[in-house]
Amino acid sequence: MANPPTPSAAAAALPRLTQARAPLTREVEVIDEHGASGRVSIPAERDLTIYVDRRELVTLMTLGAQPELLVLGYLLNQRLIESAADVESITVDWEVGAAAVKTHAGIDRIEERTAKKVVTTGCGQGSVFGELMAGIDSLQLPDTRMTQAQLYALVNAIRLQESTYKSAGSVHGCALFTLEDGDQARMQCFVEDVGRHNAIDTIAGWIAMQAQLAGARVFYTTGRLTSEMVIKSAQMGVAIVVSRSGITQMGHEVAQRVGLCAIGRATNRRFLCFAGAQRLVLQPALAAARSVGGP
Amino acid sequence: MANPPTPSAAAAALPRLTQARAPLTREVEVIDEHGASGRVSIPAERDLTIYVDRRELVTLMTLGAQPELLVLGYLLNQRLIESAADVESITVDWEVGAAAVKTHAGIDRIEERTAKKVVTTGCGQGSVFGELMAGIDSLQLPDTRMTQAQLYALVNAIRLQESTYKSAGSVHGCALFTLEDGDQARMQCFVEDVGRHNAIDTIAGWIAMQAQLAGARVFYTTGRLTSEMVIKSAQMGVAIVVSRSGITQMGHEVAQRVGLCAIGRATNRRFLCFAGAQRLVLQPALAAARSVGGP
Repeated sequence: MANPPTPSAAAAALPRLTQARAPLTREVEVIDEHGASGRVSIPAERDLTIYVDRRELVTLMTLGAQPELLVLGYLLNQRLIESAADVESITVDWEVGAAAVKTHAGIDRIEERTAKKVVTTGCGQGSVFGELMAGIDSLQLPDTRMTQAQLYALVNAIRLQESTYKSAGSVHGCALFTLEDGDQARMQCFVEDVGRHNAIDTIAGWIAMQAQLAGARVFYTTGRLTSEMVIKSAQMGVAIVVSRSGITQMGHEVAQRVGLCAIGRATNRRFLCFAGAQRLVLQPALAAARSVGGP
Repeated sequence: MANPPTPSAAAAALPRLTQARAPLTREVEVIDEHGASGRVSIPAERDLTIYVDRRELVTLMTLGAQPELLVLGYLLNQRLIESAADVESITVDWEVGAAAVKTHAGIDRIEERTAKKVVTTGCGQGSVFGELMAGIDSLQLPDTRMTQAQLYALVNAIRLQESTYKSAGSVHGCALFTLEDGDQARMQCFVEDVGRHNAIDTIAGWIAMQAQLAGARVFYTTGRLTSEMVIKSAQMGVAIVVSRSGITQMGHEVAQRVGLCAIGRATNRRFLCFAGAQRLVLQPALAAARSVGGP
């Protein structure tokens, strides 16, 4: 463990991150229903073992687009660190599939805090350790409101985004938007990963590395709004989440409990607001706009 | 820990399982893009904490359709038990969200074997502990071959299946088929869950409870073919997996390594065979059959 610097120095500095890169897709041979051979792209998936101060913590399976931000966001969302300033550096080396995290002052009680496993929904059984739900009731969400026009601007930006999903499928995408004047929404960060929790963790890492980020935040995900997605959004100071997909019962319960606006089934001009409708400024005339002139 | 019975008695008996049931969906209020209120069904999601011989092991988030089979399959797929006969009983109580597993002879080195966390793809970060990849090279898959007609029969059976997905969305489905004469495929078991790993674990639990199951096995999933899905299928003695979705690089690598036939993007008459094509008896004329007369 490194010697801890003075607290003020630690608070001021953002961690140093490597810029490790790896190919996001690979081509494989396939045979289709006509018996024809061809080549298609599939998403890469690789393991990344996180070491914190030389102690092995966990192995993540990831697409690997922005591994340093993923590791930072993972530590934040698992509440193992309080801010990016707790970390001195994150060094990713794809040759060995390792991310070495060096903290300023170690992680308090790391053994104990990573001992309780909760295997969560994800599409699978996501380990979020035990502390995810802790402190949820003390979360204060910002007073964000979004117009229906801003929602449509956001969904349209996602539609136009170039992505690994379009070329190779089988990944989840998520994005952070800020709401702008003139019914606009600005995409600040777009992340894809084989695991949607990795994608949101990477967004959390990205936010933590911003000195400042003006504007109300809205989180978009292609995946379902499960309890963890809602909790992680709230932890990132996001009061509105939008999904192409639906919501689960616990996602719904947590959204209601923390007063988060949860919008699902958002494609084209359609959507369902499952919770926190007071944050959405409805403009029903916009929904009908297309029906008049086109599909 | 219970007194171990004689080995022969343990091997003969299947575990006693409760039949705990809980509602799979609930209705919630929504507001749509026209500003209209309505009610829609969303999938239930609840936590189930597994205790093995009174020791807390893990908490799963699940739809909860067949929790006892989920717990049994989870223990099997995590390789914490070798067969269902290792378990004396599984008692699920939804009032407290607990599954009490009583084994005949305890689980050897359980502390050590559940210590190594691998956070996997899923749609999330699935804890599969460390031993999933162990022993993969020693797996001997059965000599299964499937005709294209059987594949179509299977995909059609899924299309016709009543499901929580159809009523509430946001769940993954999977099914176990056996191949039959006359180009047929028989659906033996259909499971949905908020997590697709829970769904496949439940199938593994179902298989383990069958005294015998004749016929070549084919596994179907709505989710992506990730490395864990492929490994878990192989562990269940399944040599062919079919997905509505795609495949990831590690899923592809594992399928090639164990000689498993991996078919993705299977909808209607379309599919892509990503690995193990020697197990698929192509009948390209069937693919064209619809194009002639219809869409």
